[in-house]
Amino acid sequence: MSFNELNWVEFLKKKAKRPKSVFAGIGDDCAVIRNRGKYYLVSSDLFIENVHFKLKDISFINIGMRAASRALSDIAACAGKPKFIIISAGIPSYVTSRQMKEIMKGIEETASKCCTSVIGGDTSRSDKLFLDVWVTGEAKRPILRKTAKTGDYIFVTGKLGKLAFNKPFMPRLKKSFYLAKNFKVNAMIDVSDGFIVDLYRILKESGRGAVIFKDMIPVTRGESDLYRGEDYELIFTVDKNEPKIELLKKKFYWAGYIKERRFGYYSKEGNFKKRVKLKGYFHF
Amino acid sequence: MSFNELNWVEFLKKKAKRPKSVFAGIGDDCAVIRNRGKYYLVSSDLFIENVHFKLKDISFINIGMRAASRALSDIAACAGKPKFIIISAGIPSYVTSRQMKEIMKGIEETASKCCTSVIGGDTSRSDKLFLDVWVTGEAKRPILRKTAKTGDYIFVTGKLGKLAFNKPFMPRLKKSFYLAKNFKVNAMIDVSDGFIVDLYRILKESGRGAVIFKDMIPVTRGESDLYRGEDYELIFTVDKNEPKIELLKKKFYWAGYIKERRFGYYSKEGNFKKRVKLKGYFHF
Repeated sequence: MSFNELNWVEFLKKKAKRPKSVFAGIGDDCAVIRNRGKYYLVSSDLFIENVHFKLKDISFINIGMRAASRALSDIAACAGKPKFIIISAGIPSYVTSRQMKEIMKGIEETASKCCTSVIGGDTSRSDKLFLDVWVTGEAKRPILRKTAKTGDYIFVTGKLGKLAFNKPFMPRLKKSFYLAKNFKVNAMIDVSDGFIVDLYRILKESGRGAVIFKDMIPVTRGESDLYRGEDYELIFTVDKNEPKIELLKKKFYWAGYIKERRFGYYSKEGNFKKRVKLKGYFHF
Repeated sequence: MSFNELNWVEFLKKKAKRPKSVFAGIGDDCAVIRNRGKYYLVSSDLFIENVHFKLKDISFINIGMRAASRALSDIAACAGKPKFIIISAGIPSYVTSRQMKEIMKGIEETASKCCTSVIGGDTSRSDKLFLDVWVTGEAKRPILRKTAKTGDYIFVTGKLGKLAFNKPFMPRLKKSFYLAKNFKVNAMIDVSDGFIVDLYRILKESGRGAVIFKDMIPVTRGESDLYRGEDYELIFTVDKNEPKIELLKKKFYWAGYIKERRFGYYSKEGNFKKRVKLKGYFHF
């Protein structure tokens, strides 16, 4: 038996003793540390050859860009502002120094676009190429997965299934900042493993159920896009008392409602109500 | 051509744009961030199957202990107090959930002995087992590699070559705290890649030379211990005006003097002066 990602997170959560200053820890996009009224965010993201990418499919500069964007997307998901990036790299003998410099260039270009910079790193020989990108950030009011409320509107920031696995993308830092500043957003997550699974993470952490309107969720190819990962759009839930809800419905995609836990996780398709099946993109 | 670790660090250093609040970055044991008069430390350490350990040589609990200790040793090297630990794990299919729990137990036991705790983590499938352990810390006065001064006494905290690669060890957090509090310590590093290479790192970062007294450096088996890594004793340099220098010579091992850069890196053996050869334990 081997761990899948949800299992491991569950296990870590049970084991980890969270000090009082740790506002959110395992099971959220970022670890959130409260210190003298400020919230500090820390997040990491693994990007591993033959797991998340194959060398024949992606250029080295795009490996760097994607590795950085994936980690920065976690900061976006918490409505944070990125501060510093630190990189651990496992480098196999078949990757040349020129190729490593390309990767570094990709990381730095993305860092610079997101107003942050690389301040340190560790490296080691390795059988396969991997990057572990760490980002620290700050937030006035971090938005977590575990704070969705019954009656919340569920939204998604953009069309799903658009993003090719080997192309760079920009983390939704501006969108999440705008949302956190102007609306009563209760919970948020980025779509890294598929809409269905990532919304499920909000439900699980918040102890809630949901109904989604499958026909209203914007997809590129069809229903399978709801189960595809690596989209990096944001799923967010908005309080039922939000006065500017119509503006949100115009600007983003309304996808459903948060329900009480006992309701379960359902999809409304026309006049039918179907139980949602979890079969998302797991890394295990 | 592939990177060796010193090359990669040099490369990162040239590329990384260090913001003003970053007090020390690439090329030191920790990244040091100054914020409102406080110093925050961040450090990471990779522990990779078939690079740093082989599964047949080490128990799973010891993998966890060693991975945590190696990262905490970087905080010790900066005279910091550890705060939080975050773990990224690459888990191959042949590692069972029971074995992962053993690893986690090892990490937590070490964390708890060092008065810190695990607050988060990321995980992914991987071909080989690896852990990337991140530690944050704080220091009133962080001690760096780059601040050795000409005339400094060079010391080492303990005997080299004692430590078996598959056994747990305790990071020298108490010793480094004691040293930083009571003496004019100018520079410090932990012995991860061998005394000769790690002292060289201090010299390189500080722009200095050194003479070491090879016969006075405590070793277990002989000269080869100076080139062996994974000791985790501390090398530290003490200002020539330190009034309590005799106390230090009693408590620790005096190993030489920091010299001006143009002096070079020499070893005094009896009446002979020999240029030190760099052939330490590199991960590349």
